[in-house]
Amino acid sequence: MRSSLACFLILPLLALARGDEPAQPTPKRFAIVIHGGAGTDPAKMTKAEVAAVEASLKKALDIGVEELDKGGTSLDAVEKVIRFLEDDPLFNAGKGAVFNAEGKHELDASIMDGRTKACGAVASARTVKNPISLARLVMTKTKHVLLVADGAEKFAGEMKVDRVDQQYYFTQKAYDEWQKKRTERTSSKSAEAPKGTVGCAALDSHGNLAAGTSTGGLTNKKAGRVGDSPIIGAGTYADNATCAVSCTGTGEEYIRHAVAYDISARLAYKGDSLKDAVHAILTTRLKKGDGGIIAVDRLGNITMQNNTTGLSRAAADSSGYKEVKLGNEK
Amino acid sequence: MRSSLACFLILPLLALARGDEPAQPTPKRFAIVIHGGAGTDPAKMTKAEVAAVEASLKKALDIGVEELDKGGTSLDAVEKVIRFLEDDPLFNAGKGAVFNAEGKHELDASIMDGRTKACGAVASARTVKNPISLARLVMTKTKHVLLVADGAEKFAGEMKVDRVDQQYYFTQKAYDEWQKKRTERTSSKSAEAPKGTVGCAALDSHGNLAAGTSTGGLTNKKAGRVGDSPIIGAGTYADNATCAVSCTGTGEEYIRHAVAYDISARLAYKGDSLKDAVHAILTTRLKKGDGGIIAVDRLGNITMQNNTTGLSRAAADSSGYKEVKLGNEK
Repeated sequence: MRSSLACFLILPLLALARGDEPAQPTPKRFAIVIHGGAGTDPAKMTKAEVAAVEASLKKALDIGVEELDKGGTSLDAVEKVIRFLEDDPLFNAGKGAVFNAEGKHELDASIMDGRTKACGAVASARTVKNPISLARLVMTKTKHVLLVADGAEKFAGEMKVDRVDQQYYFTQKAYDEWQKKRTERTSSKSAEAPKGTVGCAALDSHGNLAAGTSTGGLTNKKAGRVGDSPIIGAGTYADNATCAVSCTGTGEEYIRHAVAYDISARLAYKGDSLKDAVHAILTTRLKKGDGGIIAVDRLGNITMQNNTTGLSRAAADSSGYKEVKLGNEK
Repeated sequence: MRSSLACFLILPLLALARGDEPAQPTPKRFAIVIHGGAGTDPAKMTKAEVAAVEASLKKALDIGVEELDKGGTSLDAVEKVIRFLEDDPLFNAGKGAVFNAEGKHELDASIMDGRTKACGAVASARTVKNPISLARLVMTKTKHVLLVADGAEKFAGEMKVDRVDQQYYFTQKAYDEWQKKRTERTSSKSAEAPKGTVGCAALDSHGNLAAGTSTGGLTNKKAGRVGDSPIIGAGTYADNATCAVSCTGTGEEYIRHAVAYDISARLAYKGDSLKDAVHAILTTRLKKGDGGIIAVDRLGNITMQNNTTGLSRAAADSSGYKEVKLGNEK
């Protein structure tokens, strides 16, 4: 009698665990999600500053949507979107990258193809205009995944990508932030989340996922410090079987918890929804203030979440949905 | 009637899934597992070569067991074991590191504390005698996780660790391998698994897990190429809630599949045993020839597996079990 009762209680649970859920919304033909970093507080920005970031994110979104709507690949959309954001001095990636402890700029980026799990990354690049494109070349032109520092520079020369001098990356805003940070002279061991990292994740009409991330890192970071952005599994991950993810925040925490891969693992092994997986990590693994995560799953479901004062973000899909936001939901 | 039958079939499965397994063997007070790289084929080595590697692994094991048996920490055991193997020219880590495409040595290492998930790593170090110890200093003395190239070198200076010149790393064997590799002039994109990477994972009598990995990388690798060894989540992972892992093999594949973290995730999310988790990855995610994995779980269960011609390995625990092996099980 008891086992019979248990059976009636358990069978519906099993059905859920097997994924026999209420009908899913129609899968999207394409979907794209973008971030421009977590940790900025729009309440502390001028209206003009908010408008400028929103306008840039909207342009980036349009670039990605145009690529995907014409049947382009998610990889191309991710690279084009991130190149645009790298070229925009408003973000801490490419032009606008922050200063390290030595007053230099060292740039990190990674990209991953969810179809093949091919991936490429560069860290501590110093004269590369668009690190995301060099990361893609590491993926397609070498047998390696990650090239750093002088090796990345040398490879940039071999690939004849656009080069710039360090002065190119300069922005007054990043310089002022560095001056402020280096004169704080705190002995605090806690890392402050970098602001303005950029990333993109997309599903294309061929059913392929891709993700990428690009950053100048943390203001006043030690020379040679590498955060999560160029680390596949930490800052970036894409797998057609699950989802595509790009992270932004205190890189060390994202590496420690293998955040980008962990989201994929929660979908694959626990059957979590994308939204629930990202929520669980931001609330139970990461600490308040650590950062944000954007992701898209294989059906085109999008999530953009953070545990900071804000997350610069934008998203769109083939249903006509389009959104650009900086602040948290009220 | 049918649902009643289904119930009898399902309940035992549920019991298994919940972990109501036959009684576990007694947890070990301590356990330690070591690797000296995958891909070597003892059938192609002389008896003297096999004996030398076995003797070195046995000494390394004794160092680790001594530390753990006297109540030392798994972190100390892991660092001491790996320092010993780095100093031994038989392995591709520290002295004995392979040559890159420019005839230089660039060394990578990482270490992780399963108690706190604190971790540290260095990549492309060039004058550091014991990269594993520098990785531990990154963990304990900075707010960062990963320092690379010049930044790692500068930090080594600040920490006053033992320094060496490039000539120190030289071994005739590594030089001959490089000459052979660079004259092959194959345009093959496939990466060959590096041989002789070293790693260690341990459970101490305080119930704390730790893991570490150290390598010179891949013979004839591009300058600046970084594999999985210094990547937390790829080559190394430790979490007291699950297991401690060190990997060896084609680093790019281990990064792509976030192998070390994936094992932890399979334990946490699927309830896999350590042995099954490692087996699944080596047989379904990685390709034949990609490499090996050693791991210990929170109860002191040890596994050492590979999909190559051999895995130099050693293990021991507080029950008196002790094993040193190079070849595959017959």
